[in-house]
Amino acid sequence: MSWTKKHLLDIESLTAEEISTVLDTARAFKNVGERAIKKVPALRGKTVVNLFIEPSTRTRISFELAEQRLTADIVNFSADASSFKKGETLKDTAKNLEALNADFIVIRHSASGAAHFLSRVVKSSIINAGDGAHEHPTQALLDAFTIRERKGKIAGLNVTILGDILYSRVARSNIWALTKLGAKVTLCGPSTLVPKTFEQMGCRVTHNVDEAIRDADIIHLLRIQHERQRKTMFPSIGEYTQLFGLNKTRLAKTKQDALIMHPGPINRGVEIDSEIADCERSLILEQVTNGLAVRMAVLFLLNGGKGPQEISGN
Amino acid sequence: MSWTKKHLLDIESLTAEEISTVLDTARAFKNVGERAIKKVPALRGKTVVNLFIEPSTRTRISFELAEQRLTADIVNFSADASSFKKGETLKDTAKNLEALNADFIVIRHSASGAAHFLSRVVKSSIINAGDGAHEHPTQALLDAFTIRERKGKIAGLNVTILGDILYSRVARSNIWALTKLGAKVTLCGPSTLVPKTFEQMGCRVTHNVDEAIRDADIIHLLRIQHERQRKTMFPSIGEYTQLFGLNKTRLAKTKQDALIMHPGPINRGVEIDSEIADCERSLILEQVTNGLAVRMAVLFLLNGGKGPQEISGN
Amino acid sequence: MSWTKKHLLDIESLTAEEISTVLDTARAFKNVGERAIKKVPALRGKTVVNLFIEPSTRTRISFELAEQRLTADIVNFSADASSFKKGETLKDTAKNLEALNADFIVIRHSASGAAHFLSRVVKSSIINAGDGAHEHPTQALLDAFTIRERKGKIAGLNVTILGDILYSRVARSNIWALTKLGAKVTLCGPSTLVPKTFEQMGCRVTHNVDEAIRDADIIHLLRIQHERQRKTMFPSIGEYTQLFGLNKTRLAKTKQDALIMHPGPINRGVEIDSEIADCERSLILEQVTNGLAVRMAVLFLLNGGKGPQEISGN
Repeated sequence: MSWTKKHLLDIESLTAEEISTVLDTARAFKNVGERAIKKVPALRGKTVVNLFIEPSTRTRISFELAEQRLTADIVNFSADASSFKKGETLKDTAKNLEALNADFIVIRHSASGAAHFLSRVVKSSIINAGDGAHEHPTQALLDAFTIRERKGKIAGLNVTILGDILYSRVARSNIWALTKLGAKVTLCGPSTLVPKTFEQMGCRVTHNVDEAIRDADIIHLLRIQHERQRKTMFPSIGEYTQLFGLNKTRLAKTKQDALIMHPGPINRGVEIDSEIADCERSLILEQVTNGLAVRMAVLFLLNGGKGPQEISGN
Repeated sequence: MSWTKKHLLDIESLTAEEISTVLDTARAFKNVGERAIKKVPALRGKTVVNLFIEPSTRTRISFELAEQRLTADIVNFSADASSFKKGETLKDTAKNLEALNADFIVIRHSASGAAHFLSRVVKSSIINAGDGAHEHPTQALLDAFTIRERKGKIAGLNVTILGDILYSRVARSNIWALTKLGAKVTLCGPSTLVPKTFEQMGCRVTHNVDEAIRDADIIHLLRIQHERQRKTMFPSIGEYTQLFGLNKTRLAKTKQDALIMHPGPINRGVEIDSEIADCERSLILEQVTNGLAVRMAVLFLLNGGKGPQEISGN
Repeated sequence: MSWTKKHLLDIESLTAEEISTVLDTARAFKNVGERAIKKVPALRGKTVVNLFIEPSTRTRISFELAEQRLTADIVNFSADASSFKKGETLKDTAKNLEALNADFIVIRHSASGAAHFLSRVVKSSIINAGDGAHEHPTQALLDAFTIRERKGKIAGLNVTILGDILYSRVARSNIWALTKLGAKVTLCGPSTLVPKTFEQMGCRVTHNVDEAIRDADIIHLLRIQHERQRKTMFPSIGEYTQLFGLNKTRLAKTKQDALIMHPGPINRGVEIDSEIADCERSLILEQVTNGLAVRMAVLFLLNGGKGPQEISGN
């Protein structure tokens, strides 16, 4: 199928076919990253603004490199939301960027819904690079891409997401993507962070980590993020590690071919043992590589690219 | 006429003809911004340093995009003046940039005269992006461009500038540009901020807002800028809004085709009512679009471009 | 000879021939900087990450311009080491950059050995842009280039390095480069900052400035760097200036053709009199120009360039 959407705001509103089109296109761009000249002219003369109203290093760099490898013109606009409040409104900022003929605005914002809001007030294409605790669609796309590459499929797999589900936009976007693509999703973590209400999204919810990972094909760990929790949701980091951290003993009880994912940056010794993060079953660095390919694919498709068959070198 | 100046330091030293050459060239570059590929190779292999020794987002982004669309190599050098004092002198910084073969230095500085100073100590072309309360020439050029586009001319128009004139480099540059181009300029604001001495620049000065805007073709509002006032020049923001803010009632008393301008970022509800900022008579976002075209024109001309007839795509 | 090294980590492990290859290649790139179009396509489609985990303006800008003039794709990643500690490890950051197919990582870090460490954990080419008090190899290469350009040779010259030797990576790299190339190196400064142990590196050590500069062909001044001294190593800045600062009286006692160098930024009136910094015998700004050429040469050679004969325009 050929892509028709103008924005990438969330996974919730994508069809399984649309998700597959992104993954197929990303497959072609992954090859570009392995060439001597890692560049195609697809976005030459297009303007991309990276509007990061929440600190970020990894996601910003991944987007910036994706944009450079597509030969776009790039402007970085970073600010924290607090200093932003003193100045103009988000809408005025966006209208100004539109007035500069920004073709794309990649927005990260601490408020859920910020990307949707922009898509209603400006003509530029909006890409959600993470909005509050709502969604982080490119993360879910790169995770799906990584699983499909290594397992050959997604449908029918058991995927366990472990950690702070409640405040995680990564979890939310992954749940949408994985269930749409036919995986069986299990959520696990402290009961304060993994409420039963997630069952309404089609997931199994458990607070017993051994039960959660026993049949998993993929164990997706989330970063413990103090900054998005409004109050302490578990007694201590040490207690979290003891009850939910992935260590050698726990991994021994999983399927031999269960693979481990993490959106990074990892807290070694907290949600994941150092040894496991670096072992052969860990896909953490492949996720980083694939993230770049997926972001190139998203920009390419939103720019009017029809699909992977169009991609070539220059 | 063809352009011969090496620097853009102020409007005061430009002739009406030179200003018109910039506006004509900007007209051609505005078209470039509307193309699918918003890029020309005019500055390929040239080095532009954006030396912003005073915080700025909008002007910096506008310059940066202008430079990218001209295919320049760009280095951003930001610092605040206070941290600068601990290190090397402004002259030494500039001499270093010259030693790196910087073709252009775009400087914003809190000290009046900083751009002129640089033009005397280095061989690079200097563009003043705002120096203290002195001048902000590209702002005045984009404002003149915007007026000419919408009114078809500038000579003979009544232009009212409203607000903090005393500390405004935008006002100062606009007064020079508008009077050179034959407009009749009225200045209005609290008497502490709009002294009678401005009459020597050929302006009418009044402290009565209704009188100031009655016959205006253009009402140019300035941002209330606490940072450049050395002490409080009016009792309170609320009082300013009540006495000088542009609202529906006041606008009703102006000419039907009077247009509203503001250099941004706007303080909604302070110097301008939200509704008016977004109405059809507001040119605020057109100013942003035109700013990019004007900055491309300035860089193009300072780089040896002769005029609009030379501009083409690539 | 043709270049074979993958990384530039230090001067200590380079041969005199390798150093000369860099200088010869830099000579060709210096010409590029003087052209109307200061750009060659040597690194097109290559990704360079500037990982500056210690504040820097001059070196970062020099590298960034070198990368742009080689047409590389560039990502800047700045952080201070303290904020870094809260997040992921340096190794994890580097592994992430490798996963993004970074061809080059230019690293500045407050810890000695940081560049060597990266070269062992990632496949990317590593360029040391200064690691703690250890080495700053591109600075020594640009200094050697500058001396060779002006004196026609390095072997047999008397070079005096004056200042805070103990904590200076610039001094350490210069000592390696100059002694390998056959210069006779004298070190001078307060005894707390210039211990006798440096004689083991083949240098003469003296604490008498007049003796140190009497026969010098090159007087290389170092910046007084409070930040890298763990405690105050001399009574006061004024005392340092009086005892070791280069002024007119002292300069009068040197050879007529002795030349003055300084890595910048200079402290006018501290280690060097203002008048002397700006005199004809000062090479300070030539060092800046040459630094860009040397950094282009280093990137070019590490990218597989064989030597100066390959460099042409585009």
